[in-house]
Amino acid sequence: MSEAEPGLTGAMWAGLVRRPDYDEYSVKYRDFFAMRRKDGIIELRMHRDGSPYYQTPASHNAWGQAWQEIGNDPLNQVLILTGTGEKWFDGQRGAEGHFERTTADIAKVYEDAARLLENFVFGVGIPTIAAVNGPGLHTEIALACDITICTEDASFFDPHFLLSTAPGDGQGLAFQELMGTKRAAYHMYTSSPVDARRALEYGLVNEVLPRDRLLGRAWELAEMIMRRPPGARRVTHAIASRPWKLRVASDFSSQLYGQGFALLTDAGQAGRLPAGEDLSQYPF
Amino acid sequence: MSEAEPGLTGAMWAGLVRRPDYDEYSVKYRDFFAMRRKDGIIELRMHRDGSPYYQTPASHNAWGQAWQEIGNDPLNQVLILTGTGEKWFDGQRGAEGHFERTTADIAKVYEDAARLLENFVFGVGIPTIAAVNGPGLHTEIALACDITICTEDASFFDPHFLLSTAPGDGQGLAFQELMGTKRAAYHMYTSSPVDARRALEYGLVNEVLPRDRLLGRAWELAEMIMRRPPGARRVTHAIASRPWKLRVASDFSSQLYGQGFALLTDAGQAGRLPAGEDLSQYPF
Amino acid sequence: MSEAEPGLTGAMWAGLVRRPDYDEYSVKYRDFFAMRRKDGIIELRMHRDGSPYYQTPASHNAWGQAWQEIGNDPLNQVLILTGTGEKWFDGQRGAEGHFERTTADIAKVYEDAARLLENFVFGVGIPTIAAVNGPGLHTEIALACDITICTEDASFFDPHFLLSTAPGDGQGLAFQELMGTKRAAYHMYTSSPVDARRALEYGLVNEVLPRDRLLGRAWELAEMIMRRPPGARRVTHAIASRPWKLRVASDFSSQLYGQGFALLTDAGQAGRLPAGEDLSQYPF
Amino acid sequence: MSEAEPGLTGAMWAGLVRRPDYDEYSVKYRDFFAMRRKDGIIELRMHRDGSPYYQTPASHNAWGQAWQEIGNDPLNQVLILTGTGEKWFDGQRGAEGHFERTTADIAKVYEDAARLLENFVFGVGIPTIAAVNGPGLHTEIALACDITICTEDASFFDPHFLLSTAPGDGQGLAFQELMGTKRAAYHMYTSSPVDARRALEYGLVNEVLPRDRLLGRAWELAEMIMRRPPGARRVTHAIASRPWKLRVASDFSSQLYGQGFALLTDAGQAGRLPAGEDLSQYPF
Amino acid sequence: MSEAEPGLTGAMWAGLVRRPDYDEYSVKYRDFFAMRRKDGIIELRMHRDGSPYYQTPASHNAWGQAWQEIGNDPLNQVLILTGTGEKWFDGQRGAEGHFERTTADIAKVYEDAARLLENFVFGVGIPTIAAVNGPGLHTEIALACDITICTEDASFFDPHFLLSTAPGDGQGLAFQELMGTKRAAYHMYTSSPVDARRALEYGLVNEVLPRDRLLGRAWELAEMIMRRPPGARRVTHAIASRPWKLRVASDFSSQLYGQGFALLTDAGQAGRLPAGEDLSQYPF
Amino acid sequence: MSEAEPGLTGAMWAGLVRRPDYDEYSVKYRDFFAMRRKDGIIELRMHRDGSPYYQTPASHNAWGQAWQEIGNDPLNQVLILTGTGEKWFDGQRGAEGHFERTTADIAKVYEDAARLLENFVFGVGIPTIAAVNGPGLHTEIALACDITICTEDASFFDPHFLLSTAPGDGQGLAFQELMGTKRAAYHMYTSSPVDARRALEYGLVNEVLPRDRLLGRAWELAEMIMRRPPGARRVTHAIASRPWKLRVASDFSSQLYGQGFALLTDAGQAGRLPAGEDLSQYPF
Repeated sequence: MSEAEPGLTGAMWAGLVRRPDYDEYSVKYRDFFAMRRKDGIIELRMHRDGSPYYQTPASHNAWGQAWQEIGNDPLNQVLILTGTGEKWFDGQRGAEGHFERTTADIAKVYEDAARLLENFVFGVGIPTIAAVNGPGLHTEIALACDITICTEDASFFDPHFLLSTAPGDGQGLAFQELMGTKRAAYHMYTSSPVDARRALEYGLVNEVLPRDRLLGRAWELAEMIMRRPPGARRVTHAIASRPWKLRVASDFSSQLYGQGFALLTDAGQAGRLPAGEDLSQYPF
Repeated sequence: MSEAEPGLTGAMWAGLVRRPDYDEYSVKYRDFFAMRRKDGIIELRMHRDGSPYYQTPASHNAWGQAWQEIGNDPLNQVLILTGTGEKWFDGQRGAEGHFERTTADIAKVYEDAARLLENFVFGVGIPTIAAVNGPGLHTEIALACDITICTEDASFFDPHFLLSTAPGDGQGLAFQELMGTKRAAYHMYTSSPVDARRALEYGLVNEVLPRDRLLGRAWELAEMIMRRPPGARRVTHAIASRPWKLRVASDFSSQLYGQGFALLTDAGQAGRLPAGEDLSQYPF
Repeated sequence: MSEAEPGLTGAMWAGLVRRPDYDEYSVKYRDFFAMRRKDGIIELRMHRDGSPYYQTPASHNAWGQAWQEIGNDPLNQVLILTGTGEKWFDGQRGAEGHFERTTADIAKVYEDAARLLENFVFGVGIPTIAAVNGPGLHTEIALACDITICTEDASFFDPHFLLSTAPGDGQGLAFQELMGTKRAAYHMYTSSPVDARRALEYGLVNEVLPRDRLLGRAWELAEMIMRRPPGARRVTHAIASRPWKLRVASDFSSQLYGQGFALLTDAGQAGRLPAGEDLSQYPF
Repeated sequence: MSEAEPGLTGAMWAGLVRRPDYDEYSVKYRDFFAMRRKDGIIELRMHRDGSPYYQTPASHNAWGQAWQEIGNDPLNQVLILTGTGEKWFDGQRGAEGHFERTTADIAKVYEDAARLLENFVFGVGIPTIAAVNGPGLHTEIALACDITICTEDASFFDPHFLLSTAPGDGQGLAFQELMGTKRAAYHMYTSSPVDARRALEYGLVNEVLPRDRLLGRAWELAEMIMRRPPGARRVTHAIASRPWKLRVASDFSSQLYGQGFALLTDAGQAGRLPAGEDLSQYPF
Repeated sequence: MSEAEPGLTGAMWAGLVRRPDYDEYSVKYRDFFAMRRKDGIIELRMHRDGSPYYQTPASHNAWGQAWQEIGNDPLNQVLILTGTGEKWFDGQRGAEGHFERTTADIAKVYEDAARLLENFVFGVGIPTIAAVNGPGLHTEIALACDITICTEDASFFDPHFLLSTAPGDGQGLAFQELMGTKRAAYHMYTSSPVDARRALEYGLVNEVLPRDRLLGRAWELAEMIMRRPPGARRVTHAIASRPWKLRVASDFSSQLYGQGFALLTDAGQAGRLPAGEDLSQYPF
Repeated sequence: MSEAEPGLTGAMWAGLVRRPDYDEYSVKYRDFFAMRRKDGIIELRMHRDGSPYYQTPASHNAWGQAWQEIGNDPLNQVLILTGTGEKWFDGQRGAEGHFERTTADIAKVYEDAARLLENFVFGVGIPTIAAVNGPGLHTEIALACDITICTEDASFFDPHFLLSTAPGDGQGLAFQELMGTKRAAYHMYTSSPVDARRALEYGLVNEVLPRDRLLGRAWELAEMIMRRPPGARRVTHAIASRPWKLRVASDFSSQLYGQGFALLTDAGQAGRLPAGEDLSQYPF
C-alpha cells in the first residue's frame, strides 16, 4: 500500500510488492519523455534533447513499457500527454536505417507497435488528456486519449499509403473510430492532413487553442477531474474508453498484421515515395 | 384481438388476453405523463402538476413500466414524447432525499434505471419521436427515439461527473452513439451542455424549431408516418433502432454497474459538487 | 414501494405507481399458465384445461405480455417454468387455422413471436429455472432460462424445416447458442430430436431426472437461490443471461424476418409436410 | 497466371484456370455498364443506351454477378464506378411491372438484392472510387466504395418509406454507417434528400466537384493509388472496408428480410405513394 | 431468367445476363473437381486424375472462383462436397515448390487463400453438405458446410504449427467455431488429429459412416432438403451459416495476415519440420 | 536490444530502455511465485512459503503487475503456470480480513481484480500453458492460458454465489467461454465443482495426468513450442487468444462492476454462507 493511497486499511494490505516508482521510471524514460507530477497529475512531454520528439526503434519500444509502469503506479491519477516546441513529432528525423532491416528487426518493430497502442488502451486506467502542441506524425495515442486538445497549427495525418505502405499501425484505426468510415478511408488513401479546425469539426479534438494556452488548459481540465472522487474518475475513464477497447480488440491485429504483410510482400517499394511525387505539402 | 386491428381473422384469435388499456394506464401514470391519443398516435407529455417535469424515485420507476404498457397496446402505432413548459426536466427539483438512502434504496433505483432505458429500446416496437421542449437533464430517452426535434433553447448535458459520479445511466451512452467517442468523452468529463445548434451539427437532433412550432411538427411527422402501412412502420423502426439495441445490449450494464460501484465506493463524495465550484452555468 | 420490499426508505418512494399484481395477472393468464408463488419463487405451469399445453395465436400472444408483468412485480424473485402432465407442448393440437390466414394475421403472429423471446430475455431480470416435463415443441424459452432440468423422456427439436419453413423463431437460435453451430445446423435441417441424455451431453440441460422428482428439484434450486441476497441474485442472472442478450440483439430479427419472408414467398408449400414423408417418428 | 501479373514464378502456377476475361465480361454487361480499362484501372459507367441508368430486374441481377467477375480478374487493380449524363440513376424509369409480381419474382429480386451489396463488399478486394455524377436512387454501392466524390447537384436519398415500404435494401444501412444513427433514422423516415454540401458535412462523400471535373478527379485518385505497390493497395482497401464487412455481416440480412416481410404483409399498400402526397420535391 | 426457375414472370425479367453455365464451369474446373448435378443437387468431388485430391497453387486458386460460379447458377440448389478414394486431401503431394517462391508468389497465394474461405461463406447461398471421405489436410471448407458427415477413418488436423508456421488460413478458425477455444488452441499448437469419433463428440461432424454409405447418405440428406420449398432452403442456410459469416468477417483477416507475417519474418524456418521431429504419426 | 535476441541489427536499436530483468522480478514476486527459466521457457509456480498458494490482497495485487513484467521481458518466450503441492489454491486460507474493509479497500481490490485478468490476456503475448496441480479456487487464469492440463484430482468451481456474491471476477467468464452458456450458468448458481474428467469432456482442459507427470508434460509441450520459430509462436498465440481478448473486452467490466455493486448493496450478507448450509462438499 502506498502512503499516498488514502483510506486503505494497512494491515489488510501487508506484503504488497513495490509499485513502479516515479523516481525510477521518470529517469528510465527521460530520453523520450520529460515527466512531471503534481497532486496526482502526471505530465509526459515527449522530447529529444529538449527539441521536438522523433521516433526511433528504441523510443518506439519505450512507449509500450512506459504505459504499463505509469498505469501501475497508483500515485498517477490523471495523465497529460504533450510534445515539445512546435511539433508533436518531428517527421524529418528518425527514419534513418528504415531500409537495412533484417526480418528479425521488422518482427520486433511490429511487436512493439502492437504494445504501443494496446498497452495504452488496456494498461492505463485513469483519465487521459492529450495536448497536441503542433503538427506531426503518429497522433494515434493523442487521439486515443479521453480528451484531446490541440494548437491552431496542429494537423493529423497518416503518411503510410503516401509512402507505399498500408495504414495499419493505429493512426488509421483512430481515424475510423473518430471521423467515420468514409472520411477515414479518404485520409488513409490520400494522406491529406486534417488541420485543427477540421479536426474539431470531425470530432478528432475537443478544443483548439493558441499554443501558449494549450498546456495550461490541459492542467485546468486535469485539476477539475482531480476534484472528483477516485471511483468517479476511474469509471468515467472506463466508460469513455470502452469504444477504444472494443475497437482495438476487434480490429487492430488485422490492420497491423496486414500492414506488416504488405510491407514484406511489397519488399523494395514499401516505405518509399513513388517517383515523381514530392512531400513538400505534408506537415512532416 | 382489438376491434381496432384491421384485417385480422377473428376466429383465429379467440381467447386473447386483454391488452393494456389506454383508459387505465393513462390514469395510472397521470402524475408523470399527460397522455393523449389520436388515430394511432400517442403523445406522452411529461409533467408535474402541469409544470415542468422533475424526477423522483417514483417517477423514475414509472418510466420502465410505462414503456411496456404503451409498447403492448396495439392501438399505439407512433409515439411522441415531449415535456411541459419551457424545460424538458426541471433539474432544480427532485433531488431531495438523495443522500439518506439505504443500500436497498440504491439497489432499487439502479434496477429501475436499467429498466428505464432497456424497456424503451426493447419494449417499444413502433416509430418514436421526441420533441424536446427546452433544456434539461436526462435526455437519453429523447435521444434514443428514432427522430428527435428540439427547441432553439434546448440543451443536452450529463451532470454526473460534475456532481462527482460517473455518467453510466444512459446519457453518456446516448452521447457515444450519436456524437462519437471523442466528443462524448469530453461532454461526460466536462458536463458542458450541447446547445441546439451544436446538437444539430453533432447529429443529436434532426430539426431545431421555435417552441410554438415544435409539437405541431412532431405531429406532422407522426401523421406522415401513419399514412404508411403497418409493416413498413414497424420494420423501419426495427432498422432505425437496431444500433440502439446492439449498443444497449453490449455496453449498458457495464456503464450502469460501473456508476453504481463508483457511487458506493466514493461514498461521502458522490453526488456532491466539489467545494469551490458552482453550478450557475449549467442549464438545470 | 411494496410492503414486501425490505429495507426501502418509505418517504423516498412516495408516489410509486402500482406494480403488476399477482392476484390479477395470475387470473388474466390462467387459461395458459397456472401460477403459484411462495417466498419470492413464482412457478408458471403451462397448461390447457389442466392438460398439456398447446399453442394457439392467443396463447402465443400471451407469453410476451406475461413476461413483462411477471418481470415487473418486485415480489417475484425467482421464476420456475414448467408444463403439465407428460408433455411440454402438445404438438398434436393448436395448429388449426394455420392455413387460412390473412397477411395481417401473419404480421401479428410474427410481432408476437418477437415479443415472446425478446421480452423474456430483456424483461425478466431474476434467476430463471425451466423444468421440462416431457417432450414437445417450442423449448426455446426453456433453453433460455438460466438453469434447465428435464425428465428422462424429454426431447428437444425444431420441426420448422420438416414442415417446409425456416427455423427462425428462436428454437434454432437457442440450439446455436447451446449446442454449437454444426450440431444446430444439423438439427435445424433434419428436425431430428435431441433426447434427454444427448441434451445433457450437448449442454442444453443441466440435470435429467425422473418425472416425479423434476419439480421438487426445481424448487430446491430456487430455494437455494433465494437464500442468497437480492443483489447477488440479480447480478448472477445478469451475468448468466448476457450471452442470450447479445445473441438475441444480434441475430434474432434476421432469423425471424427470414422465416416470415420464406413463409410468404413459399406460399402454398410452407407449413406442410412434403408428400411421401410422415411425422410418426417425431415427438409432437 | 496472367501475363500481366509481374513477379510470379511461372512453373509454380501451372494449371491455373482461366480468370474472367475483360473482353468477355465487358460485353456481357454492356447493356448496363460501359467499361474501359487502362493500366489496372477499370471504370464502370452505368448507362442505358447511353442515357442515365435505370434499374430493372435484369440489371439489378447483373450487379452482383459483375462484382464477382471484376473482383476475380487480377488485371483489375482499382475500380471507378460512375453514371451517365446528369443522373446517377433515373428514378423516373424502371419501375414498370412493380406490382404484377409473383412471390417467386419477389423472392428472386430479394436474392439478387442480397448479392448486389454483399458481393460488392466481400467480392471486390481492390480500392474502389465512386464518382456520383448527379442525383438519383440507390447510391448505396457508391457510398460503400472506399472513396466517394460527387457533383454539386448530387443528392442522396432513400424513398422506400415514402413509397410505403421499409428501407432495408442497403441505402439505409449505408446511411447508418456514414451519417450516424439519428440522421440515418430521419432520412429513412422522411426520405428527404441529402444534397452534396450536406453529404460532405455528414461524411457521405469526400469531395464535391463541378460535373466536368468529376471523372478526371476520380482517375487522378486512381492513378495516385496505382503508383503504390500491390500489397499496400490491397491491405489499405482491406482496412478501409473492414467496417463495411462487419456491418453487412451483422445487419444486412435483418434489414433486407425485414423489408421483404413488410412488403409482403403490407400487400396492396407497399410500393405506392399514400393518397394526397406528391413526389415532386424528390430528385427521382 | 432460367428455364428451370419456376414461377417467374418472364416479361419482368427481360434482359437478364447469362448466368454461369454448368456445361462450361464443370469443364473449366474439371482437373480439380468432378461435378455432377441432378434435380438441383450439385456434387463436387475433388480429385486429381481420378485419385485423391492434392493442393497446388493452381487448384488453390480455383476454389474461390468455383464457389462464385456455383453460387451464381440458380440451377444449383443444394451443394455436396466430397473427395476421391480414401483421402480427403493427399498431403504427401502438392507441396513441391513451396520454398522457391517470390514475395509476389506469396502475396498471390494469400490473396487466393482469402477468397477460398470468404467466397464459400459469402458466395454460396444454398444448403451445403460435406461428405469427408477420409483423412486429410484442409478440412476447413468441409467444416464450414452446413452439414458435415465423414467416414470412420476421417481425421481433422491443422499441421501449420507442426511445420513451423501459424494456423491462420481457416482450419484453426473452423476449429475455434466448432470445438471451442481451449480445444482449438490445443489442436493448433499440437497439430494432433481429431479422429472421427472425437469429431462427432466435439461437434465437428454430424454423422460418422462406413465409406460405402457416405455419399449415399449425403444425397439422401440433399434430397430431403430439396423436397422443401426454395425460401425455406435459402433462409435455413442463412440461419445456419450466420455464425460463420460473423466469425469470418470478424476474425479471418487477422489470422490470415498474421500467418503471412509470421511466414515472412520467420523466413528460413517457416514451413519446415524442426530437426529431430518426424511426421510419421500424422495422417497426411 | 537484448543480447539474447538473435538477428537484430544492433545499431538500429541504439538507446533501448532496459527491459524487465528476470533477476529482479523473480525476487520481487518470490513470496507468491517461485520462478525458473530455461531456454526461453519461464515457469511460474504459485506458492506460499513453499506450501500451496492462497490469496491475500497483496498477492492479488501482484498478479497483474507480474503479467506485465513477464510479458515485457523478451527472454520469456513460453510461459508455464502451475501451483505447489496438491492444491492449486488453498481456499482454507487467505480470507481473513474479508469483512472489515473500507470502501477504499474494496475499490482497490476491484481495481486489482480487473488488472489480474486483463493484464494476462492483453499483456502476455507468448504461448501460455497452465498445469493445474490440484483442486482450488480461482482457476480463471489457468483456463485463460492457451493450453491447460491438470491432475486427476483437479477441480474447477466458482464459490461466489455459494458465498452470497455474484460470480463476476473472471471465473464465470472463463466458464462461459469454455463450457458454454447453459453449463456455466449452472456452475455459477450451484458452485458445484467440475472434476477433471468432466473438465476434459467440457473442453476446460486438454489433458488429465497423474500428478507426477503433470509438470513434465507441461515442459514437453513448451519445448515442442520452442522448437518453432518466433513469428509462428507469437501469431499462434494471437490466434488462440483472440476469443479471450474479444470476450474480456466485451463482457468483463460488466461482470466485475456488477459483482462489486452487488457486494456493496448486499452489504451484511455478501461473502457469507447462508445459515444452515455447509461447505464440506466443496474442494476449498
